[in-house]
Amino acid sequence: MAALSFQDVIMRLHEFWARQGCVLWQPYNIQLGAGTGNPATLLRVLGPEPWYVAYVEPSIRPDDGRYAENPNRMQMFYQYQVILKPDPGNPQELYLQSLQAVGIDPREHDIRFVEDNWESPALGAWGLGWEVWLDGQEITQFTYFQQAGGLELEPVSVEITYGLERIVLALQGKDAVWDIDWLDPANGKLTYGDIFRRAEVEHCTYYFDVADVEGLRRTYDVYEQESRRALEHGLVIPAYDYVLKCSHLFNELDARGAIGVTERAGYFRRMRAMTRNVALAYAEQRRQMGYPIDNPAWAAPALASHTTFPQGEGERPGIVLPTEPADFLLEIGVEELPAGDVDDALAQLRAAAPKLLGDLRLDCQSLVTYATPRRLVVYAHRLAPRQTDLERTVQGPPARAAFDADGNLTQAAIGFARKQGVDVSALQRITTKDGEYVAAVVRTAGRPAVDVLAEALPGFIAGIRFDKAMRWNASGVAFSRPIRWIVALFGPAVIPFTYANVVSGNVSRGLRPYGSPDLPIESPAAYFKAMGEQGIVLDQDERRTRIVEQTHTLAAEVGGRIPEDADLLAEVTNLVERPTVLRGGFSPDHLALPREVLVTVMRKHQRYFAVEDEHGKLLPYFIAVRNGDRQHLDQVTHGNEHVIRARFADAAYFYRKDTARPLESFLPRLSTLTFQEKLGSVLDKNNRLAGLVPAMVALLGMGEHVLPVARRAAHLAKADLATQMVVEMTSLQGVMGRHYALLNGEPEAVAEAIYEHWLPRSAGDALPRTPAGIALALLDRLDSLAGLFAAGLEPRATADPYGLRRAALGVVQILATRQIDLDLAEALDPVANAQPIPVSTEVRAAVLDFIAARLRAWLLDLDLPHDVVEAVLAEQSRNPYRAVQGIDDLREWVKREDWSSILDSFARCVRITRGQPAYPLRPEALSEPAERDLYTAYRRAADSLTLSDNVGAMLAVFAGMTPAVTRFFEDVLVMDEDQAVRENRLALLQAVAGLAAGRADFSKLVGF
Amino acid sequence: MAALSFQDVIMRLHEFWARQGCVLWQPYNIQLGAGTGNPATLLRVLGPEPWYVAYVEPSIRPDDGRYAENPNRMQMFYQYQVILKPDPGNPQELYLQSLQAVGIDPREHDIRFVEDNWESPALGAWGLGWEVWLDGQEITQFTYFQQAGGLELEPVSVEITYGLERIVLALQGKDAVWDIDWLDPANGKLTYGDIFRRAEVEHCTYYFDVADVEGLRRTYDVYEQESRRALEHGLVIPAYDYVLKCSHLFNELDARGAIGVTERAGYFRRMRAMTRNVALAYAEQRRQMGYPIDNPAWAAPALASHTTFPQGEGERPGIVLPTEPADFLLEIGVEELPAGDVDDALAQLRAAAPKLLGDLRLDCQSLVTYATPRRLVVYAHRLAPRQTDLERTVQGPPARAAFDADGNLTQAAIGFARKQGVDVSALQRITTKDGEYVAAVVRTAGRPAVDVLAEALPGFIAGIRFDKAMRWNASGVAFSRPIRWIVALFGPAVIPFTYANVVSGNVSRGLRPYGSPDLPIESPAAYFKAMGEQGIVLDQDERRTRIVEQTHTLAAEVGGRIPEDADLLAEVTNLVERPTVLRGGFSPDHLALPREVLVTVMRKHQRYFAVEDEHGKLLPYFIAVRNGDRQHLDQVTHGNEHVIRARFADAAYFYRKDTARPLESFLPRLSTLTFQEKLGSVLDKNNRLAGLVPAMVALLGMGEHVLPVARRAAHLAKADLATQMVVEMTSLQGVMGRHYALLNGEPEAVAEAIYEHWLPRSAGDALPRTPAGIALALLDRLDSLAGLFAAGLEPRATADPYGLRRAALGVVQILATRQIDLDLAEALDPVANAQPIPVSTEVRAAVLDFIAARLRAWLLDLDLPHDVVEAVLAEQSRNPYRAVQGIDDLREWVKREDWSSILDSFARCVRITRGQPAYPLRPEALSEPAERDLYTAYRRAADSLTLSDNVGAMLAVFAGMTPAVTRFFEDVLVMDEDQAVRENRLALLQAVAGLAAGRADFSKLVGF
Repeated sequence: MAALSFQDVIMRLHEFWARQGCVLWQPYNIQLGAGTGNPATLLRVLGPEPWYVAYVEPSIRPDDGRYAENPNRMQMFYQYQVILKPDPGNPQELYLQSLQAVGIDPREHDIRFVEDNWESPALGAWGLGWEVWLDGQEITQFTYFQQAGGLELEPVSVEITYGLERIVLALQGKDAVWDIDWLDPANGKLTYGDIFRRAEVEHCTYYFDVADVEGLRRTYDVYEQESRRALEHGLVIPAYDYVLKCSHLFNELDARGAIGVTERAGYFRRMRAMTRNVALAYAEQRRQMGYPIDNPAWAAPALASHTTFPQGEGERPGIVLPTEPADFLLEIGVEELPAGDVDDALAQLRAAAPKLLGDLRLDCQSLVTYATPRRLVVYAHRLAPRQTDLERTVQGPPARAAFDADGNLTQAAIGFARKQGVDVSALQRITTKDGEYVAAVVRTAGRPAVDVLAEALPGFIAGIRFDKAMRWNASGVAFSRPIRWIVALFGPAVIPFTYANVVSGNVSRGLRPYGSPDLPIESPAAYFKAMGEQGIVLDQDERRTRIVEQTHTLAAEVGGRIPEDADLLAEVTNLVERPTVLRGGFSPDHLALPREVLVTVMRKHQRYFAVEDEHGKLLPYFIAVRNGDRQHLDQVTHGNEHVIRARFADAAYFYRKDTARPLESFLPRLSTLTFQEKLGSVLDKNNRLAGLVPAMVALLGMGEHVLPVARRAAHLAKADLATQMVVEMTSLQGVMGRHYALLNGEPEAVAEAIYEHWLPRSAGDALPRTPAGIALALLDRLDSLAGLFAAGLEPRATADPYGLRRAALGVVQILATRQIDLDLAEALDPVANAQPIPVSTEVRAAVLDFIAARLRAWLLDLDLPHDVVEAVLAEQSRNPYRAVQGIDDLREWVKREDWSSILDSFARCVRITRGQPAYPLRPEALSEPAERDLYTAYRRAADSLTLSDNVGAMLAVFAGMTPAVTRFFEDVLVMDEDQAVRENRLALLQAVAGLAAGRADFSKLVGF
Repeated sequence: MAALSFQDVIMRLHEFWARQGCVLWQPYNIQLGAGTGNPATLLRVLGPEPWYVAYVEPSIRPDDGRYAENPNRMQMFYQYQVILKPDPGNPQELYLQSLQAVGIDPREHDIRFVEDNWESPALGAWGLGWEVWLDGQEITQFTYFQQAGGLELEPVSVEITYGLERIVLALQGKDAVWDIDWLDPANGKLTYGDIFRRAEVEHCTYYFDVADVEGLRRTYDVYEQESRRALEHGLVIPAYDYVLKCSHLFNELDARGAIGVTERAGYFRRMRAMTRNVALAYAEQRRQMGYPIDNPAWAAPALASHTTFPQGEGERPGIVLPTEPADFLLEIGVEELPAGDVDDALAQLRAAAPKLLGDLRLDCQSLVTYATPRRLVVYAHRLAPRQTDLERTVQGPPARAAFDADGNLTQAAIGFARKQGVDVSALQRITTKDGEYVAAVVRTAGRPAVDVLAEALPGFIAGIRFDKAMRWNASGVAFSRPIRWIVALFGPAVIPFTYANVVSGNVSRGLRPYGSPDLPIESPAAYFKAMGEQGIVLDQDERRTRIVEQTHTLAAEVGGRIPEDADLLAEVTNLVERPTVLRGGFSPDHLALPREVLVTVMRKHQRYFAVEDEHGKLLPYFIAVRNGDRQHLDQVTHGNEHVIRARFADAAYFYRKDTARPLESFLPRLSTLTFQEKLGSVLDKNNRLAGLVPAMVALLGMGEHVLPVARRAAHLAKADLATQMVVEMTSLQGVMGRHYALLNGEPEAVAEAIYEHWLPRSAGDALPRTPAGIALALLDRLDSLAGLFAAGLEPRATADPYGLRRAALGVVQILATRQIDLDLAEALDPVANAQPIPVSTEVRAAVLDFIAARLRAWLLDLDLPHDVVEAVLAEQSRNPYRAVQGIDDLREWVKREDWSSILDSFARCVRITRGQPAYPLRPEALSEPAERDLYTAYRRAADSLTLSDNVGAMLAVFAGMTPAVTRFFEDVLVMDEDQAVRENRLALLQAVAGLAAGRADFSKLVGF
C-alpha cells in the first residue's frame, strides 16, 4: 500500500477518533500556538462534564521559524489534537491503534514514550506524560492534563497531540516536510511545499524582521483590556478569545526580540491571570448551568481487571491456596515511567519489600525486586503460606491490684485476661524495675499470606512516592504514571485487591512493540519465562550491561569509542525493556559544527551516544537504543538518521546565522534583554562587570597582564546570550561565546575567560582556571548577589528564581578550590557601589551572611567535623579560602594527644574573661613572676604571628605558651581584690585569648 | 437510513470532494466573514494556476447575531467552501451529487438555482451565480468568480459555499440549529446548541453591547499599517492576514453601531485598497515563481460535446442531409438564467431569429422561440434545405471603356467579367443616369442550409446580450450563465459548430429534479415530445397561466385571494421549467407583525405569494412555486414552512426589539450615522428639516394647522432608520416609521407624513398626498441637493451615489403632480442657508439647473412636443407646476389654425429687437397712429395680465393685439433715421415681446 497523503492521514485520524466517539472539531479561528489553546481543549477540560474531541490545529510558533530552511521545523505546523475526558483506561493503546490506522506498524518502527512534563505558563496549565518518539522523531505529545487555567482538573483529561508533518514525513519517507505529498497521487501532484513554503518564508521575515513592536504592544494592551471588559460582563468566550490574541501577540513580540527576561515574566503573569479569570468564570458558568453535557458514551470506565477468569467469579476454578511455601509475585504494570522514576521506584522497592514481608511476618527464602519503564516487580522465593505466629508478653495491672488479700484474682486481673483473650489461668507474675505485675502471654496465630498481602499491598504500592506524581482516574491515586494492571500471585493463586481502580489479577502484558499482548501468568515461577519470551530484561544492571556491550561493539566497528557518559547510560537503560542498539550515521559535513553543539544535540534531544575516534575527535555516527528486537532495524535506523539530520540542520542554521556577524555585534541586542527591572538590561550588567574588572583584578592581586584580557572578556562576556544557538540551547552559553570569540580572532585567554565566567554552572561542574575567568566569574556572581539583594529579591524558602544560592556557592567554591585569599567584604564594596540602586550596609551584610551560609553548608557537605567548621567560620566566614585553611589546621590539631590540655589552657583564658569588658593591658604593672612570664610568652607569640597566619600557626605558638598559662593560673589569683591588679590580669588573659581572633572561636569546639 | 450527524455531513463532503481531486483544507486561523476570505480562495483564484480545494470555514458575521433567539441565524455559522479552478464543465452536477452524498435526494425536494450576484466590496471581488434553495431555504451560494482583489480572474473559478447548518437542519428535520445532532447517536447525544449556544449569546452581547469602539478603531489603524509594512517587504500572506483582521474589526465596529454611512464607504475603500495591493503582489509573486502549481488532474476539460455518436466521427451513421424542407431546432442549454435574463433573451430571440433566417435566405413555414431558465429555443417548421439563389446585377466599366473602336470587348471588360465569375458573353449593357455601362448578372446559387447555419449560429448566439454577463471557461465567451450544451438539428442531421467550447449535438437535457437526464433528440419534431415527457413547459405564457391558475385555486381553498403582483408573477414564471404550486401555512401569531413586513419577507426573500382574505387582511398562508412534479410535495412544503418560520422569527425579533422602546428614542442613535462628513449626521439632517418646516409650510401656503403636524413628523422623520427592522430591510423605511409612530400614539397625520416624506422612493412610486408629507418630502430632497452640491458631490456621468437625480425628479413630480405652485429658487434659499457649509450663489444656481434638467427629461418622457417644452422651460423651469401649466396652454395654442399668424406677429416684434439694448419706452413720444394704437393695445394687454397668468392668458391677450401689430409694421418704419424715434419704437416692440417674459420663449418654437 502506498503511504497515505497528508490530507488522507487527517481523514483516517478523523475516522478513527470519530469511531471512538469523539466530537470532530475545527481549528480555531484565532492564531494559536497549540491545539491546547482551542477552547475545545482549554475550557472543556475544566469541570466534571465528560468530553471527547478530535481536531486539527495549525499551530503558530513564530520563534520556531527557520525561513523554510529546516526540513521539519517551521513557524506553522499542523497538530492533530485529541482530548479524552475522563481517561478511557487505555489511551495509549487507542493512540497506537490510531497510528496503525494511518499505516504505522509498531513492529516496523521504534515507538517510544519518553518522559515529557508539559507546561504552559501562559495558560496556567500543566500535565505529565510523554513525547512519543517514532524512530527517534518526536511525533506526539501525550499528556495527562492535571491543571488548566490554574484550576485542578477533576477528572483528569488525556491530551494527545500529534505532529502531523512529522508523522507523514516518516510515512512517506521524505527528507523534508516540503516534499510531503498533500494529495493522493491519483489526484495529481501537490506538495506541502507548494502550499506553504512561500508563506513560511514570508511569515518568518515578518516575525523576525518587520513586525512593528510598538503597534503590537499597543494592541496587546487593548486586547487585554477587552478581555477584562468582556469578563466583567460575564462573557467567557469573547474574553478568552482575547487571551488567545494576546498570546499570539506576545509570541510575535518575542520572536521579534522585543521581550526581555523580566518583561517576559510580566507578560506571562498577565496572560496567566487572564486565563485564570476566564477559567474561573467558565467553571462557574457551567456549574450554574448544571453541567448539561452528560454523554453516557463518554462515561469513565469501570474497574480495570486483568485475569484469565471473569471478573466477579473469584478464584480460578480448581486453584486452591498454597499450604506450603510458594513463590510470591507482585507486578505493578504502568505506562512508561520516566527514567529517573524507574531508579526511584527501584530503590524504594528494595527497601520496602523486605520490610513489608518482615512486618507481615512472612518468611521467604529470597527476595528480588526489578524495575523497567513498564513494570515494578517484587518476587519472593518460597514465601511462607502463613504468617509466623506471634507471642507477646503483655503487662497487666500491678500484682497488688491483681490479687486480693486472699491471693485471688481481682476483677482488674480478670478483665485484663479477658481483654487480652487469654484464660485467667495463663496469667503470670513478672517483675519489672517498677515492681511486680501480672502479665499475659498473648499468642497471635499467623494468618494466611494471601489474606495479609491482600490487605497490605494497596498500602505498599501507595507507599511508593515520586518527585512528580499525577492523577489519572476517579480513584484519585497519584503515581508517576498510570497503573494499568497488577499481577499479584501467591503460587497459582491471585492475591485479590484493588488499587487505583485496578483489580489485581494474573495477566501481565508483553513488550510494547509486540502490542503489549496479554500474558497469563500461571504462577510466579512462570513469570520470568514469560518475560524472557518477550525479550524483556527485568534486571536494570543487565540492561545496562547489554547496552554498554552493544554500544561499544558498534562503535568499534567504525573505529570509534563512546565518550564516558554515565548519566546518559543510566537514562537510556531506563527507557527500554528490551534494548537493541543501532548505529546511524550523518553527513561528515556536520562535523564542522562545534563538538559541544553536536554532542548536546545528540545527547539532550535524542539520547544518542556520540562516537569519537582514538584522538577524541567526533566521528559522523551516533548510537541509539531501540526498545525491541532487530526486526526492521534498518527502517528504525533510517528514521533516526532523518531526525538527527533535521536537528543538525537546525543547529547549522543557527551557526550560520550567528557566524555571519562578529560576536561583538550581538551586544546591542542585550539591551532588550532585561536582567532585572531595577538593575537594567543584561547589557547593563555586562558593562558593569567590565567596569569592575580593574578593582577585582587588583583585589585578587593578579598581574598587570591579566587586566586587558579580563577587560576584553568582560566586554564580550554575555554577548553569546543573544546568539541563536544559545537562545535555542541555553546550556551552550559560554561554550558558544568561547567558540565565536575564537572565530573572531580573540586571544585564547579572552575566549577562555568568556567561557569560564559561567563556571560553575551547577553543583559538581568545573571551576574557572584562568585568572581572567576567575575574576569574571566572581564579579558576575557578586554583582547578581549585591544587585538582587538590594532589589529585595533574596531567595526565600524554596524559591530562588535567580539562582542566588548557586551563585553564592560558586563564589565559595572558586575561592576555596582555587586557593584565593579574598576578603569578600572588601570585594563586595566596589560591586555594591556600582549597582544602579543603593546597596545599604545592611544589605551588604546580608549578602556576606548569605555567602557564609553557603560556605558552611558546603563545608558540612564535605563531612568535616561540625564544631571545627563552626569554630573557624565564627571568625573567618568572609574569606572562604582562609576558612578552609583554618579548618584544615584545626582538624590536625584536634587529633593531637595533647589537644585537650592545649584547649583547656586556652579555654581557661577565655572563660575567666567572659562577660568582662576589654581592659587595657599595662605590662609594666604586671608584678608576679607567673604573670610576667605569661606576658613574655604572649608577647613572643603575638609578635611571631602575622595576619596571614592561620589557625595552625596560632595554635603552634599557643601550644608553646601552655606551660606559662598553667603556671599563671596556678600561681596567680586573677580576681585580686585590688581592682587595678585584677583588671590588668584580665587584660593579659584577654590578650592571650585574642590570639585566636580572626582565626577561630575555640569556644565552639566540643570539649571547650 | 437515519440522517447524518453534523460532523458526518462534513466528513461525507470531504470524502466527496477529495474524490473529485480537491485539496482538503483547514479553516483559517483568523476570524473570517466567509470562506472566500481564506487565502485558499481569495489568493489562489488569482492567476492561471489550477486549484481545487474544499474546506470548512466558521464564518463570523457579528451583525447577524440574534442572541441565539433565531432558529437559524447566528453570528457564527459553518460554511463548507469549494473552489474549482478552472471550471470542470459540470460543477452544478457535481454539486448536486455532493448533496446526494449527504443524503439529499433531489427528487424528494425542491432544489433551485436562484439568481444571486455576489459581491464583496471589501475584497474587491464579485461573481455571478445563484443561491441554491432547498425547499425555499438558501443552503448554498454558487458563484462563478469573475474578479477578486480587484483583478480579473483568468480562468474563472467556480465557488460553492454550503451553509452547513441549514443543510443539516433540513436533513435532520429539526426546527432550530440548536437542536442539530452533532454526533452520530451511536456515540451519544450532543447537540449543536450544547456546543455553541452559550457562546453565541456571549458573542452577540460582546459585539452589540460591550466592545470598546475606540480600542478597536486604534487596532484597525495599527493593523492597516502592518499590512502596508508587510507588503513593502514583499510579504503577501502576512499583509493579507492583516487585511482579514481589519475586516473583522470593521465588522465588529459595524455591529456595535459605530460606523456611519460615509465612514463605512471610507472603510470599504481602505479595505479594498489593501486587498487590491495584496492581490497585485500575489499575482506578481506567482508570475515570478513561474506558476509552479500545475496539477494535470485539475486541467480544464476538453470541449463539451453532447451527441449520441462519438466525438470526431462526424455525422451519425446512416443520416443524410435533408434535401426537402425539414424542421430546424436550436436549443441553447444553459445553467439557470436569472429571471430577467429569460425575458431579455426571449425578446432578442424573437427579433433575431427571423432576421437570421431572412439574412440567410432560408425560407420556413413558421418560426417560434421559447425561453426557460435552462434553455433558449428557436424552432423553424419546414425550413428550406438550401438558401434561395441570389441574382445581382453588378455594374462594370463605362461602355466606352468596355468596347474598343471595333465594338470588341476591351481588357477592362474581360477582367471585369472574370472577376465577377461570369462569361464575357453574359455581359450586358445598361443605362444609368451617369451614362451607359457594361454590367454582369451574377447568380449565387443557394448553399445547403446546414452549411450556412453552421457558419452563422455561433454569431447568432454571440448576438444575445445581457445586462450582466459572465465568463466561465477558456473560450472567453460571456453569457448570462454558462452554456453547457447545444442542440442544433436540421431534420435528423446535426448542424455542426462550436461555441463557448461546446460542440453542437443532438442531446438535450431533461428537468433538473430528474437529474437533467440526457435526452437524445432524433429530430426537431421529437423535441417537443421529449420536453413534454419531462413536464417542461417551454412556453412562458403557458407557465404563467398555469401558475396563476394553481395559485388562485390554492388560495381559494382557504378562502383567500392573491394580491396583484405582476413583478413577482413574472419572476416566478422564469424560475421554473415545470411549475407546481404549493401552499404552506404559518402560525397566525405572526400576523401580529405589520402586513408590509410579512409581505416583504415573503415576496423579497422567498418569492412567495401572500394570501389575503376578501377584506384584504393577510391569511396565515403563503403560496410557493416548485420546479418539478408533485412527488414529495409535502416534504417540500414542510421545508418551505420551516424557512418562513425562521424568517418571520427574525422579523419578530426585530419587531420585539424595536417596539420595546419609543420611536423617538432611536433618534440619538442617528448621531452616529453619518449622512455626509461635511453635512453631519443623519440626526443633524433630521433636525435641519425640522427647523425648516415653518419656512416651507409658509412658502407652500399651507394652513396653520399643518405646522404642528409637519414639525412633529419632521422630528421623527428619520428615526426608523435606527430601528432593527429597517436596518435589516431598508425597503421598509418610512413604513416602519409610520407603524411605530402609530404604536406610540402619534396622530395619524404625523405618522403618514413620516411615511410620505420618503416618497417617491423610485420611479413610478406613489407620491406624498398629505400637506405635511409633501412639505417634508420637498424639504428632505432640497436639503440633500443643496448640501451635497455644496460639498462638491453633485452626480457625475453615471455615478450618483447619493441618488440626487432621483431626489430632483421627486421634487419635480411632487410639485407637478400635486399642482403646487412653488418657485424653487425661493424655496431653496432658506434650505441652503441652513446648511452647515456655505452654499454659494453659483451652487444654488447649479442645483436649480439640475432640477430643471430633471424636469425637462421628465416632460420629454411624457412625449410632449420638444419645442413647446423648451419654449416654456426657457422661462419657467424654476416652477415645475407652472411650467406644466404653461406647456399645456401652449400645446392648445399651437393647434389653432391662426397660430402661425399669431406666432408670426409675435416673432416680428421679437426679431427686429434682437441684439438691441433695452430702451426706455416714452409713450408720449409715440406720434404715428399705428404706433399709438399698438401702444394702447399693449397697455390694455399688459394691464390685464397678472403674475399668475400663464402662457394661455398671455397668448389670449396677444392674439387680440395682432391686428395692431400687423398695422404697426405696415404703417410705421421702425428704423427711423431719427435715433430717438427709432429707439422709442424699438422700446414699444420690446414691451410687446416682453409680454411673454416669465412665461415662455416663443423663439424656441418650430416655425418661429
